[in-house]
Amino acid sequence: MVFTDIATRTYNHNWRLDPIVRSLLDTDFYKLLMLQMIWRLYPDVEVTFQIINRSRSVRLADSIDEGELRAQLNHARSLCFAKKELIWLAGNSFYGKTQMFSPDFIAWLADFRLPDYELSRADGEYQLRFTGPWTHATMWEIPALTIINELRSRAAMKDRGRFALDVLYARAKAKLWEKVERLSRLPDLVISDFGTRRRHGFLWQRWCVEALKEGLGHRFIGSSNVLLAMDADLEAIGTNAHELPMVLGALADSDEALAATPYRVLQDWRALYGGNLLVVLPDAFGTAAFLRDAPDWVADWTGFRPDSMPPIEGGEQIIRWWRDKGRDPRTKLLIFSDGMDVDAIEQTYRHFEGQVRMSFGWGTNLTNDFRQCAPFPGDGLDPISLVCKVVEANGRPAVKLSDNPEKATGNVAEIARYLRVFGDTGRKQAPVTV
Amino acid sequence: MVFTDIATRTYNHNWRLDPIVRSLLDTDFYKLLMLQMIWRLYPDVEVTFQIINRSRSVRLADSIDEGELRAQLNHARSLCFAKKELIWLAGNSFYGKTQMFSPDFIAWLADFRLPDYELSRADGEYQLRFTGPWTHATMWEIPALTIINELRSRAAMKDRGRFALDVLYARAKAKLWEKVERLSRLPDLVISDFGTRRRHGFLWQRWCVEALKEGLGHRFIGSSNVLLAMDADLEAIGTNAHELPMVLGALADSDEALAATPYRVLQDWRALYGGNLLVVLPDAFGTAAFLRDAPDWVADWTGFRPDSMPPIEGGEQIIRWWRDKGRDPRTKLLIFSDGMDVDAIEQTYRHFEGQVRMSFGWGTNLTNDFRQCAPFPGDGLDPISLVCKVVEANGRPAVKLSDNPEKATGNVAEIARYLRVFGDTGRKQAPVTV
Repeated sequence: MVFTDIATRTYNHNWRLDPIVRSLLDTDFYKLLMLQMIWRLYPDVEVTFQIINRSRSVRLADSIDEGELRAQLNHARSLCFAKKELIWLAGNSFYGKTQMFSPDFIAWLADFRLPDYELSRADGEYQLRFTGPWTHATMWEIPALTIINELRSRAAMKDRGRFALDVLYARAKAKLWEKVERLSRLPDLVISDFGTRRRHGFLWQRWCVEALKEGLGHRFIGSSNVLLAMDADLEAIGTNAHELPMVLGALADSDEALAATPYRVLQDWRALYGGNLLVVLPDAFGTAAFLRDAPDWVADWTGFRPDSMPPIEGGEQIIRWWRDKGRDPRTKLLIFSDGMDVDAIEQTYRHFEGQVRMSFGWGTNLTNDFRQCAPFPGDGLDPISLVCKVVEANGRPAVKLSDNPEKATGNVAEIARYLRVFGDTGRKQAPVTV
Repeated sequence: MVFTDIATRTYNHNWRLDPIVRSLLDTDFYKLLMLQMIWRLYPDVEVTFQIINRSRSVRLADSIDEGELRAQLNHARSLCFAKKELIWLAGNSFYGKTQMFSPDFIAWLADFRLPDYELSRADGEYQLRFTGPWTHATMWEIPALTIINELRSRAAMKDRGRFALDVLYARAKAKLWEKVERLSRLPDLVISDFGTRRRHGFLWQRWCVEALKEGLGHRFIGSSNVLLAMDADLEAIGTNAHELPMVLGALADSDEALAATPYRVLQDWRALYGGNLLVVLPDAFGTAAFLRDAPDWVADWTGFRPDSMPPIEGGEQIIRWWRDKGRDPRTKLLIFSDGMDVDAIEQTYRHFEGQVRMSFGWGTNLTNDFRQCAPFPGDGLDPISLVCKVVEANGRPAVKLSDNPEKATGNVAEIARYLRVFGDTGRKQAPVTV
């Protein structure tokens, strides 16, 4: 007998909108950690974030309908934190610490809404900007990225038959499960989901997280996605991002202050957080410059997250620096999260085994790897390198140099100035795929 | 195209068990309030709870398989409170109060498991008893009842076709929605779901709660079911039950101490709770006796929950008593929760409108009214009057007199003694249907 749930079916085909973002917790944990610091230390800074599509061959406005994009962005703006979400943030322990978020910060979150956006289109590309207090504009990063990425997936699957879609997901599941089987052979692997921003879609990310939980057991330590962490009683994982040095760099009123910015960020961070959250993200203005000028106390931090160098090369550089500083790398932590996939995870794991503690943040290649899965033509399901970066702070341009010039952002004059201040040592062009 | 989710289908037909109780929060809120009091004041009392089927025409062992019953009870014993559930209990506010449950109590809950059970069968009936510390045995009441009631529903629906089941639920939904429409015409109605213990099934209770939320808006104030309250961000509703006077009555070492028990319970309660939780349940040993001997301060409590008299008669009796004590009933609260359905709610509402604040707890007739809904014969879906009562405390028999001798429990000799102590005034036989 063929059974149809008529009420559900009728409700479904009358949907005004199938929301992509249904909760303000559907974001990366590091946004909340950073938000608390920004709220406490920099409540008056005004910033602009902007969507940047680094995949120049893909023109987003060709596949994504502007009306749908506005509808999804507007829906995200209608959200506020649910009572039970705030209770969980207040009561859960994060990184072994209770009350990670202070009661006054939680009370402030209760009234939080995403600020307005500016959307225009030109030459087949969208310009999407978020301007407002840093405390507000920053929270657009992840929802803006997930909305665009999922709208792009939906467009690629539109008008496809149910059978084709069934085969698509069957292949994607089989593909992911093979990766899980390979990773399960690394006995001391420590890995987490970092795939929110570039995911194929929310439901697919949830499937991936459940697959890791089932297949990797204790090797899978949690998700950067706060909503999924809450719903599945997983650890929420994350520390901080480039926006901290980028904003503080833009606010620096001299070259000397700019040169000190990377360490100023760490001091701010340390005022609020400790333990395994003391992880350095060294590459905003070049890792070599960062290490060269770093005060000795930076070597006391728990670990580093190299983010724009090949993982083995980047890790070796930091291990050498720890040794130079007289620290034992075996007590230290390296977090690898830049475009990792199973091959790179295996190589990196084997290379550093016994030398240093390691943790892997698995992103785009976990939650958006549909390559060779579609039984229909087109590249609409290939992941793109989309970011949402801070471009201005208090009206001054923000810059990221990165170890890979392909990942640099900012205007040409400012980049030149930053290169004068920090130098160009160790920066190397490499293709950016995800 | 007919679409089948093969993995789900295959998983489904290989289920070892479809659990009825999946969370220790799937219980009534008053159990948690009472548990905290028991844990704090009576940690060393040993009790026995027992399932009592007051519907003598129904023999449970005829329809419920013993193996299935044991499997469900064993599954409930495997549960512990999830981390996010404890976080919610600790962080949510209840009745407008934060930290209703103290941190040491929450910490104790983290290790809580349901104790063992004793199950035997004779003459087509099960004997199901729970013996252990009061702090543990008490928590069996609701899961034991929901398991038996849902197993009975499942047995009645076994081997029915999908079409028949579809019609069954269509009728039940239509029936409930008519009730909702009638209730929505009472402008100042205050109503909550009290239907956990006798529900048709968990999923059906959830549907009912969602229907009340949708159809009654602000008139619907919440659910006694803690899990549903958490999941739907509703208020958790409930105060206390007969087990408190029944256990303390059994422990009383003289007739004088027994006579003082109903007020001793209130003093214990008041040591922990306040405000709208100061609700008297007066009928354990007869409402007339309770009111006759009550100290004046009892009239300062927020309200009463008459539980075994016709609602108008029971309410009038309490209002008269408030007036005799010089209190204004319009500032007082009456909670009606004994076998209410729409007719009785409408009559009671209209009768007391303007005289007293009212709140309705809607139980069995909300979550288990399938009368005239099944397109197949049999009375297996009719609700039965099943309770789980404390029968012994520290080896001494526990007694409930009630205002309706049909609802009395305890052995004959002890009932006679209680009647000597409290008298028989105002008690009146009435049929018990749910």
